[in-house]
Amino acid sequence: MIRIGIIGYGNLGRGVERVASLNKDIEVVGVFTRRNPEEVSTLYSKVYDLNNLLEFKGHIDVCILCGGSANDLPEQTPKIIKGFNTVDSFDNHGKIPEYFKKIDKIAKANGTVSVISAGWDPGLFSINRLIGEAILPQGDTYTFWGKGVSQGHSDAIRSIEGVKYGVQYTIPNEEIIERIIGGEKLELSTADGHTRLCYLVKDEKANEDRICEQIVSMPNYFADYKTIVKFITEEEFKKKHLGMPHGGRVLRIGNTKDGTTHVYEFKLKLESNPEFTASVSVSYARACYRLVREGNKGAYTVLDIPPKYLSPKTDIQLQIELL
Amino acid sequence: MIRIGIIGYGNLGRGVERVASLNKDIEVVGVFTRRNPEEVSTLYSKVYDLNNLLEFKGHIDVCILCGGSANDLPEQTPKIIKGFNTVDSFDNHGKIPEYFKKIDKIAKANGTVSVISAGWDPGLFSINRLIGEAILPQGDTYTFWGKGVSQGHSDAIRSIEGVKYGVQYTIPNEEIIERIIGGEKLELSTADGHTRLCYLVKDEKANEDRICEQIVSMPNYFADYKTIVKFITEEEFKKKHLGMPHGGRVLRIGNTKDGTTHVYEFKLKLESNPEFTASVSVSYARACYRLVREGNKGAYTVLDIPPKYLSPKTDIQLQIELL
Repeated sequence: MIRIGIIGYGNLGRGVERVASLNKDIEVVGVFTRRNPEEVSTLYSKVYDLNNLLEFKGHIDVCILCGGSANDLPEQTPKIIKGFNTVDSFDNHGKIPEYFKKIDKIAKANGTVSVISAGWDPGLFSINRLIGEAILPQGDTYTFWGKGVSQGHSDAIRSIEGVKYGVQYTIPNEEIIERIIGGEKLELSTADGHTRLCYLVKDEKANEDRICEQIVSMPNYFADYKTIVKFITEEEFKKKHLGMPHGGRVLRIGNTKDGTTHVYEFKLKLESNPEFTASVSVSYARACYRLVREGNKGAYTVLDIPPKYLSPKTDIQLQIELL
Repeated sequence: MIRIGIIGYGNLGRGVERVASLNKDIEVVGVFTRRNPEEVSTLYSKVYDLNNLLEFKGHIDVCILCGGSANDLPEQTPKIIKGFNTVDSFDNHGKIPEYFKKIDKIAKANGTVSVISAGWDPGLFSINRLIGEAILPQGDTYTFWGKGVSQGHSDAIRSIEGVKYGVQYTIPNEEIIERIIGGEKLELSTADGHTRLCYLVKDEKANEDRICEQIVSMPNYFADYKTIVKFITEEEFKKKHLGMPHGGRVLRIGNTKDGTTHVYEFKLKLESNPEFTASVSVSYARACYRLVREGNKGAYTVLDIPPKYLSPKTDIQLQIELL
């Protein structure tokens, strides 16, 4: 059994707890929270104060970090990897290299393994962008997201002072996708392909203009996009915006010679983004455990990890059943 | 530069030569053939007698084996890996474990690396079957191929005595695919989802019934499928059946809780199956070279290899550009 600790119990943490129960080789030691443990009600796990995490050293194989990328992970991960192996789904794309470098140094110094950015994007989509361009070097890669709620962007909105509830929908430009699959070559920025639509409920006294300005100018998350911000009532929010579907696709369109075109496509359609992201994290917790057992240390991304490490099956089972 | 040798110059070998020229870090040392080298005309490469391959020891980093899986590879690979690192696209699914075991033993004894079964199926499809089921353990995996020409199955047909030209189209059952994506749970064998349609030109004196019987009873390739064999004229064959398109998809439909369903889909649409398979082989030749440089030896499948090894880019480039 691989013993995991769940750090943080928001949407992602709840997803990890649920998904862990679907994996026969995964056991949840506990949920660790910054809140009062007595006020956190879980599906089946014990709840502990995050400040007491170190008492579990030696009893947890991998901590799955379920905090937000904007504020939680940059602060938590460097501390936790000193005593634990970790998996996170850090999704601030522009800051990944810097984050990796910092985590790698601390993990190596402390003999731990940290798998970073293990969700679907970054994560599975990154793997497919890599494989697509490696195999079809003469071609173009396109990523489209949505329509769906982005966890990372919603967290970023909610981190702004005066925002009571907030959700961000990423909406792909379907007309552009059709033109690309139809063979047209387009020079696109990510912003050309998508709109970011935000629904917010603000605290009574908060200033709409200030919140709006903070969102649309937020680097990496919103600054480069067409962003629409809508303030709505709490009632409307709870009625229409509590679901968390998402999805998207990576396309690589490449030629091996003039007139011979290949379409490589990876596509996800998810009814719960946090539960699917949690599913990816749990598989990479298994990979993390394997890396540890082989004596590795340092930071890893999904690009560094052999696919077989995600599976509970043996090499020979995989050869027989899946190759 | 990674120096490759191309072993065999059929459709796949020609594809490798073409694709190698699209990769700036790959250099073709030569094409090695069992035919009279003077009678083999290539795009740009020198041609040598396969019997003289050993003279190139130390001058070739990786041999890409382009023979058929039915007869060529089982005979060639065990010999060639004694002196060279290799990549092949061995596609006889049922025999992969046995083939792996044999190659692994010889490669380890000789200090070489052999990447086996590195095409799209087995290959990229295998990776996606693995990732799909690891991430969504509660679910079902489906693979569909075509409509398209299967190289492996066409080679198998052509290996039969009395067959002058032959091609096999794999045809998916589109109605079944739609039902699955629509959420229906179906218990399917591969044979339920596909028909195998063969067009043959036979030698004048060859017996139709004997050829037909040899095809439909061929284990692993045809025995379990609905197989249709049609004998046509050489004229018709050359007019209609020289293209080699293919494609297919891997679907994983899984739940994280009742009523919450996720669709994971990997899809290829290829205008030239051999050129795309060649593209995969060339990327895995790069991976093979990396494995060798790190001091590894033995047999590897695509499931054992970190995605980043397929790319010519550095770790930091990949983090910046693709994560």
